[in-house]
Amino acid sequence: MPSGPLMVIGGAEDKLRRRTILREFVAASGGDRARIAVVPTASSLGPEVVEVYDALFRREGAADVVAVRPQSRDDAHDPATVALLDDVTGIFMTGGNQLKLSAIVCGTPLGDAIVGARERGVVIAGTSAGASIQSSHMVAFGGPGSTPKQRMTQVAAGLGLLESSVIDQHFDQRNRYGRLLMIVAQSPQLLGLGVDEDTAAVVERDERGHEMMRVVGRGAVTVMDPARITTDAFEAKRSQPILASGVVLHVLPAGQVFDLTERVLVPPVPQVDPGEAAEIAEAEQDLRQLARDIAAADADPIVLRRRLARRRGRPSHDPDGAPA
Amino acid sequence: MPSGPLMVIGGAEDKLRRRTILREFVAASGGDRARIAVVPTASSLGPEVVEVYDALFRREGAADVVAVRPQSRDDAHDPATVALLDDVTGIFMTGGNQLKLSAIVCGTPLGDAIVGARERGVVIAGTSAGASIQSSHMVAFGGPGSTPKQRMTQVAAGLGLLESSVIDQHFDQRNRYGRLLMIVAQSPQLLGLGVDEDTAAVVERDERGHEMMRVVGRGAVTVMDPARITTDAFEAKRSQPILASGVVLHVLPAGQVFDLTERVLVPPVPQVDPGEAAEIAEAEQDLRQLARDIAAADADPIVLRRRLARRRGRPSHDPDGAPA
Repeated sequence: MPSGPLMVIGGAEDKLRRRTILREFVAASGGDRARIAVVPTASSLGPEVVEVYDALFRREGAADVVAVRPQSRDDAHDPATVALLDDVTGIFMTGGNQLKLSAIVCGTPLGDAIVGARERGVVIAGTSAGASIQSSHMVAFGGPGSTPKQRMTQVAAGLGLLESSVIDQHFDQRNRYGRLLMIVAQSPQLLGLGVDEDTAAVVERDERGHEMMRVVGRGAVTVMDPARITTDAFEAKRSQPILASGVVLHVLPAGQVFDLTERVLVPPVPQVDPGEAAEIAEAEQDLRQLARDIAAADADPIVLRRRLARRRGRPSHDPDGAPA
Repeated sequence: MPSGPLMVIGGAEDKLRRRTILREFVAASGGDRARIAVVPTASSLGPEVVEVYDALFRREGAADVVAVRPQSRDDAHDPATVALLDDVTGIFMTGGNQLKLSAIVCGTPLGDAIVGARERGVVIAGTSAGASIQSSHMVAFGGPGSTPKQRMTQVAAGLGLLESSVIDQHFDQRNRYGRLLMIVAQSPQLLGLGVDEDTAAVVERDERGHEMMRVVGRGAVTVMDPARITTDAFEAKRSQPILASGVVLHVLPAGQVFDLTERVLVPPVPQVDPGEAAEIAEAEQDLRQLARDIAAADADPIVLRRRLARRRGRPSHDPDGAPA
């Protein structure tokens, strides 16, 4: 069985209106056959968070929702807790404090069971802290700012579901360019993935074994590729800005697909403007008519020109007011 | 005479402590022979701003400071106002509203006199709004956020002192990646320059005519090079995130030099760690002594090894606690 998709959600996914991301998660987990485990360990709340997601997932048609809520590494070793994941089709890790989540779950039977579940096809989703923990190298915490500075953030070990990349979330909203640039400058074999709120990076392995990422939701996913970086991260002092020259950026809105293994954009399909398409179709029709008229040899040029002008006089399409 | 340097300052330059940038400006303007014009038109204040900079520049040793304060395009056509720039060696444009500044100054005799002053070697500095106006294509205003969105900012025409680039300021502090990315996605012949607070991009033309930028101050200058961008900026709707894939980033702290014409980093000189250098020098000395001892043929290996161990027993240097 192919491994299940990862859904790396940038936090604050819409819960009331469009619910694009939660819907996609439940659908990917099997829709009305979905059995979902909610892991709220990152949160300082507990049953309240589970109640919210329980209601949300059932509203989207999920068959069953179960809470898996270890509060200590002992809990995460408890076979009864681990067994809760045996027959789920989707796992959802909530937001909160990713270092609390990783400190309790990583390297325990429960952590291993999450990784194992993905290998048998289960969808693994996480939002905010639950997104961060999916990478091998996890942003533990850090400050805001656009400019990378030497000690502005801290890395810890995550679940390792995504090995190519380090994940940051609330990216558009919380000014996190600096901390993600600092991390990739210090670890240039990693890609940086900055996921906006109400946005998800959906990562699936294709038949070649490549990690293919598709963007879903309201914002964008920003990919930082430091493969050819020039940096002084190995000698910059204290909290000084660091040199990070030659990082390639990809800002990817919904619908875009990026190959995380090859580090290239899958070329987008150009969008055809419906107004422009209608105009071209009309012009082609005019030309065919003109050719027929000429062939029929009733071809007084003035008559032809007037007929064309009448046809063209119809209002044209401009549905959006976009620049011409 | 070669054209004068531009100092593009990201706002909030230090005025009380190190004063790195204001010092560099006065020194470049001639030190105790500096005659400086302050243009406070962007500011909603007026005489107060001039008083502050008057005091600051005189404290750094400037010979004279004069206010050039047009409040309308008529003022900017007044020959008496324009004549104030005749014998200055430095011009300093304050912060405030760059659209007010450009609306009053650009395309007037005063605007032409600023451009002309640079051509005869005068230093042209601007902070915040006064920085923005230096480019040909000027950020007029716009919202914050890391992700570029279709209508998040507005471009107007600036003074045109810097043609290769569009300038944004308060870059680290105000989360302005998105708006600068939007602009370069729509105008990929331009570089984006994001200048942090208390930081300056100092741009001078070299003998080849290249615009060479050197970074001064506490933060960094971020260069966005969209030469190879893939974008949907020409068809993205309303305020949606736009695709901006393949933008090359250069985050440049103080001391770095970047060729804006060729769009390449001038390779930094690697720093030598003083502790490491001392250790290597010592090891070389040991080896020379060993060679002498062997050559002198008093070479009992045990004696030699003990002697070496005694020398090595001295404490080694680790002044900074940086990673080994």
